[in-house]
Amino acid sequence: MTVPAYDQAVNDAFVLYPGGKFGYEKRDVPTLQSQRDVLVRVIATGLCGSDVHYWQHGRIGRYVVEKPIVLGHESSGIVVECGIQSGLSVGDRVALEPGIACNSCSFCRAGRYNLCRDMRFAATPPYDGTLATYYRVPAECCYKLPPHVSLRDGALIEPLSVAVHSSRLAGDMQEKSVIVFGAGPVGLLCAGVARAFGASTVVVVDVVESRLQSAFKYGATHTHRTTSDSVEENALEILNAAGLELGADIVMDATGAEPCMNTGIHALGPGGTFVQVGLGRPNPSLPVGQICDKEIVFKGSFRYGPRDYQTAIGLVNSRRIRLEGLVSHEFSFSQAEDAFQNVASRAGIKSVIYGPGVDEEMAKATLS
Amino acid sequence: MTVPAYDQAVNDAFVLYPGGKFGYEKRDVPTLQSQRDVLVRVIATGLCGSDVHYWQHGRIGRYVVEKPIVLGHESSGIVVECGIQSGLSVGDRVALEPGIACNSCSFCRAGRYNLCRDMRFAATPPYDGTLATYYRVPAECCYKLPPHVSLRDGALIEPLSVAVHSSRLAGDMQEKSVIVFGAGPVGLLCAGVARAFGASTVVVVDVVESRLQSAFKYGATHTHRTTSDSVEENALEILNAAGLELGADIVMDATGAEPCMNTGIHALGPGGTFVQVGLGRPNPSLPVGQICDKEIVFKGSFRYGPRDYQTAIGLVNSRRIRLEGLVSHEFSFSQAEDAFQNVASRAGIKSVIYGPGVDEEMAKATLS
Amino acid sequence: MTVPAYDQAVNDAFVLYPGGKFGYEKRDVPTLQSQRDVLVRVIATGLCGSDVHYWQHGRIGRYVVEKPIVLGHESSGIVVECGIQSGLSVGDRVALEPGIACNSCSFCRAGRYNLCRDMRFAATPPYDGTLATYYRVPAECCYKLPPHVSLRDGALIEPLSVAVHSSRLAGDMQEKSVIVFGAGPVGLLCAGVARAFGASTVVVVDVVESRLQSAFKYGATHTHRTTSDSVEENALEILNAAGLELGADIVMDATGAEPCMNTGIHALGPGGTFVQVGLGRPNPSLPVGQICDKEIVFKGSFRYGPRDYQTAIGLVNSRRIRLEGLVSHEFSFSQAEDAFQNVASRAGIKSVIYGPGVDEEMAKATLS
Amino acid sequence: MTVPAYDQAVNDAFVLYPGGKFGYEKRDVPTLQSQRDVLVRVIATGLCGSDVHYWQHGRIGRYVVEKPIVLGHESSGIVVECGIQSGLSVGDRVALEPGIACNSCSFCRAGRYNLCRDMRFAATPPYDGTLATYYRVPAECCYKLPPHVSLRDGALIEPLSVAVHSSRLAGDMQEKSVIVFGAGPVGLLCAGVARAFGASTVVVVDVVESRLQSAFKYGATHTHRTTSDSVEENALEILNAAGLELGADIVMDATGAEPCMNTGIHALGPGGTFVQVGLGRPNPSLPVGQICDKEIVFKGSFRYGPRDYQTAIGLVNSRRIRLEGLVSHEFSFSQAEDAFQNVASRAGIKSVIYGPGVDEEMAKATLS
Repeated sequence: MTVPAYDQAVNDAFVLYPGGKFGYEKRDVPTLQSQRDVLVRVIATGLCGSDVHYWQHGRIGRYVVEKPIVLGHESSGIVVECGIQSGLSVGDRVALEPGIACNSCSFCRAGRYNLCRDMRFAATPPYDGTLATYYRVPAECCYKLPPHVSLRDGALIEPLSVAVHSSRLAGDMQEKSVIVFGAGPVGLLCAGVARAFGASTVVVVDVVESRLQSAFKYGATHTHRTTSDSVEENALEILNAAGLELGADIVMDATGAEPCMNTGIHALGPGGTFVQVGLGRPNPSLPVGQICDKEIVFKGSFRYGPRDYQTAIGLVNSRRIRLEGLVSHEFSFSQAEDAFQNVASRAGIKSVIYGPGVDEEMAKATLS
Repeated sequence: MTVPAYDQAVNDAFVLYPGGKFGYEKRDVPTLQSQRDVLVRVIATGLCGSDVHYWQHGRIGRYVVEKPIVLGHESSGIVVECGIQSGLSVGDRVALEPGIACNSCSFCRAGRYNLCRDMRFAATPPYDGTLATYYRVPAECCYKLPPHVSLRDGALIEPLSVAVHSSRLAGDMQEKSVIVFGAGPVGLLCAGVARAFGASTVVVVDVVESRLQSAFKYGATHTHRTTSDSVEENALEILNAAGLELGADIVMDATGAEPCMNTGIHALGPGGTFVQVGLGRPNPSLPVGQICDKEIVFKGSFRYGPRDYQTAIGLVNSRRIRLEGLVSHEFSFSQAEDAFQNVASRAGIKSVIYGPGVDEEMAKATLS
Repeated sequence: MTVPAYDQAVNDAFVLYPGGKFGYEKRDVPTLQSQRDVLVRVIATGLCGSDVHYWQHGRIGRYVVEKPIVLGHESSGIVVECGIQSGLSVGDRVALEPGIACNSCSFCRAGRYNLCRDMRFAATPPYDGTLATYYRVPAECCYKLPPHVSLRDGALIEPLSVAVHSSRLAGDMQEKSVIVFGAGPVGLLCAGVARAFGASTVVVVDVVESRLQSAFKYGATHTHRTTSDSVEENALEILNAAGLELGADIVMDATGAEPCMNTGIHALGPGGTFVQVGLGRPNPSLPVGQICDKEIVFKGSFRYGPRDYQTAIGLVNSRRIRLEGLVSHEFSFSQAEDAFQNVASRAGIKSVIYGPGVDEEMAKATLS
Repeated sequence: MTVPAYDQAVNDAFVLYPGGKFGYEKRDVPTLQSQRDVLVRVIATGLCGSDVHYWQHGRIGRYVVEKPIVLGHESSGIVVECGIQSGLSVGDRVALEPGIACNSCSFCRAGRYNLCRDMRFAATPPYDGTLATYYRVPAECCYKLPPHVSLRDGALIEPLSVAVHSSRLAGDMQEKSVIVFGAGPVGLLCAGVARAFGASTVVVVDVVESRLQSAFKYGATHTHRTTSDSVEENALEILNAAGLELGADIVMDATGAEPCMNTGIHALGPGGTFVQVGLGRPNPSLPVGQICDKEIVFKGSFRYGPRDYQTAIGLVNSRRIRLEGLVSHEFSFSQAEDAFQNVASRAGIKSVIYGPGVDEEMAKATLS
């Protein structure tokens, strides 16, 4: 890989200010702080609902934009400098895991680093994200991309890892039935992972017909457009459409919408598992009687943990997951605000913003 | 054990009629239908909230009292007749598991017989319960009582098995912290099982101070009387009282009350597990954001399954669980309606009704 | 499906006598003994190493051929009579699960029915097997074949279920590395299941080059022919050939040969899992120091349990496993002894014997 | 706690030289290398079979004493200096976890840090151990002792953590039967942990009657002295003595002796679990047929991992495990070689060596 010129003096950043205005700033180029640290030239960054939420609402739960912050956390890049114990080389094309855990607390030591209380997660206040020229991470947060994946599509490894993590929480999927609520990027990737993980039936449910069109391409065996106001009726329609007499084995909700959560719980069979992938309305009402009667396990899913990125890369490497077509909109760094507007209007599937000075043809190219 | 006289012509039953009236009937004595079947003379039956609910409301969810039904399902008894392949003997003192599973469906074959769609569960319409002279079960539903346990206390093996099942769903408890909501019989037994299962901290929470008094006797290390209207404040108070800085590892809710469920979820630490033991308000609103952020596992618990009765008996046998004192009220068979009134008024901990013609002194006696 | 003429008077059986002689007998046609029982006309039966072992050695461990026995347990057939609660219909094309569990002991109730002490397993003394015109099983032992699978290939569902069971014991295989020892039918099916279950690397190891040829067709990503006498060297060669620096995640041994078991344990990485699929030399010496140092889990695998047959059928139905080509030799019922000779000489992959009077063209036909 | 005088110039060490000679050296006092590091004054160090093995044989497997090494790894101490992010204070009485993991490799990140390839483990060549005045560890390797535990007994937290780790690998023990082979310190602690973890039957087996005497004090419900040469007979005798008709649920072998391993596997019931706690003869022959027939899980156990030390401390804190009496011999630092001789002669249960200049009365004292 041709390594981009590495100008130590310039680190352009796209900054969100408290109140919701965007601007560009020149920041210092990060310096390596340990022998395992790596400096990455950011090539492409996908936008996520949370980025847009910080822009529009100034906060997500207890995380508040109190000072200027760089957003962006779904990124790929090229290594431009690396510590001698990083095991990486200048020029490596990598996907970035945007959370830097402390690695020594009881959660980290027990293999639950996504629950680390000292996690420094990109674009979660007060930590800056990746919409800049450079980003520094420890080696364990860099994952080499397979040659047939472009750096543009490499930005999708982050949401794919979210889908992998959620699917793992759902447990064994071999020859099981899975219903996925939501046909956005995460929902589609959940469907793809469920299929790759062996689910024999994968029903993708959404309210917008156009979003369901592409679901078959990404792993769905059935789709269902919700029309009824009754969650019981919706559940029944979904089960009938997919021929699931005893109810579904697994439901993954990537919407956070109360009716979806309720429909999903009604659609589960005895002993079924529900995974809440997306956040949403804070205090939905849920049919707990159903959860007890059917001895359902309801799991929250938070980011990703051990082996999730490796598995995501592996799925792409073996072409069990295809990323082509998921990036529906591309923006140069100077158009970053347009990208936010685009995501806010819910157009397409995934929008990416290229890093400052990135050659976009190179970003779309593959090595094989 | 002296075997009660076995009069094949008389099977007195206490019957609930649709509409809520009670009465007594002479029913046929059940006959053995397979070589593994056993006929049991019922000695003592504990009353449960569900029995009272059928009486007062005529239904629980989809189960409706449409024809006369015998209630009661928490029973002990003495074997009076047994099939040659039952492995039991006339005179055996047993606790009864009141659900007769089909044993051949995919749930039963997979070790989840509590989810069997063809389960015939005592006192769940349309199946009669145990408030009668005799009850017939297959051998796998009879568990011999340890000699130091009276037949009266043997009626508590059923709710103890509920607590064992729920505690198992909560996962490893060694040196962990557990909060139990509700100081009724099931809550107290959950506390006891949690302690026996190795929990280092067991906080029992209730709104009634008098019910908390006995909690220490049954396993609690701390108690907390809820006073605040704020679930966040309640959660904080409970954690402070018990010195749990990072939140609790496990919450078990034996109330089904919305504020308890919410307080419990707020009180859990990252990676915590919530087990819903009691049913309750059908559609409570729940803090799903908390469930996601902390990657909580929320589990419904339904009756009991493999090894639960054996474990319950074992815990009592090794005196790791003490049942003494939990039976607070005793009624003869002719006073059965009084027992229902008593439970409805929430007096004491557990009320039992003796079977027809039972010698109450014998029922309270132990063999060692 | 055209139902074969059902002659209640004739049940031809191929019988092994103590001492090792074979013969044909006319036996009674089994009669249904419960409403869930099913009578099956046996169409095809695969021969297994255990069948040959009983013939050649008169015993396997504690199971001794003390009286005449019908061998055969890998069978497909057509339902010719069924109890009213069987849920099956006359004419159904089915794979047979050849073990009839008691369904009520503590192992069965806990979902471990393969460990049932009262299991009546076909062709395991004293229970007769399926090399006969008819075989009776309860409904839970019949699994409908997908239309695109012939009854001949349906006989392979049994060894496929062995592979599914073993692969499940190995745990999550997504993007993991698996080494399979043995390129016989079970080894090849293990390789196929491992690949279907998501393994990114599947190395099949054997000593016979010709048997390795077909491995790629059934799921292998790499093959290795063992040449060295040193188990450490063999392990290293296998790992180098497959690019597994840290050792393999999973080893499945379908040979039972001491050098394979040792090589496999040396080839495992830290935290790896070893599954012993085939029996073999009774008391091999094993590198326990390696098992401790690397905290390896070594699991015995015995037959199959809950959901294994369903999963096997599902894998075939979704064409994630292909059975075509595995049946290398076919024999009519009158040639049954030739089939045993053929398997004893280790020719080909799998030999099947058609049932008495079976139309072989029909047996090879698919419905779609 | 009175903090020992901290003389930066003196770090006395007891050193093993290649060839097997011991000597004393003055080493540099370690300096803190990160803000989470802690310097500990070593108070007491228990001797372990591995220490003695290095002395007598110069190696354990691939670990060879090629240059002078300080042995000792079962230690307690007092914090004398701590980094600002250690969360500890000067004067804290602590048990030391003697393995310093890299915390960033895939094993560490996945919660399996005992499998870390870059582990620096005390007294495992080339890393020095704790038989010195001072030892430096990161904060996550220091665990505060309960006030009622003396620093002398605090040296037992390390072998107790071994027992906790092994017992966890054995899975749920509630109301199960456990056979422990070996009545040395680790075997006795395994028995104690098994009982604390809920086992209803704990049989301790040894060949020396005198070692079995104390087993009841530490958790055994039964003991058995092995006399027969036949492993099948031994297995049967053990099962009969403990009334275990179906075989044991769990076997833990703390001897590494081939006959014990074989007896244990024969004594397991169907579905049982075997945990190999102690190393031993490198290539024992094992009854693999039994492992397959009974679908046994055989696990190697290696040191300890997440939550093991915390659980060990918790068990002692709640007095569910009693350490009193396990330290049978005490040696001053100048008598260190005598301690090795004593352990080599297998006298008593556990020998500890006090650190240089330690006030032995203080070391035996408790704070409450």
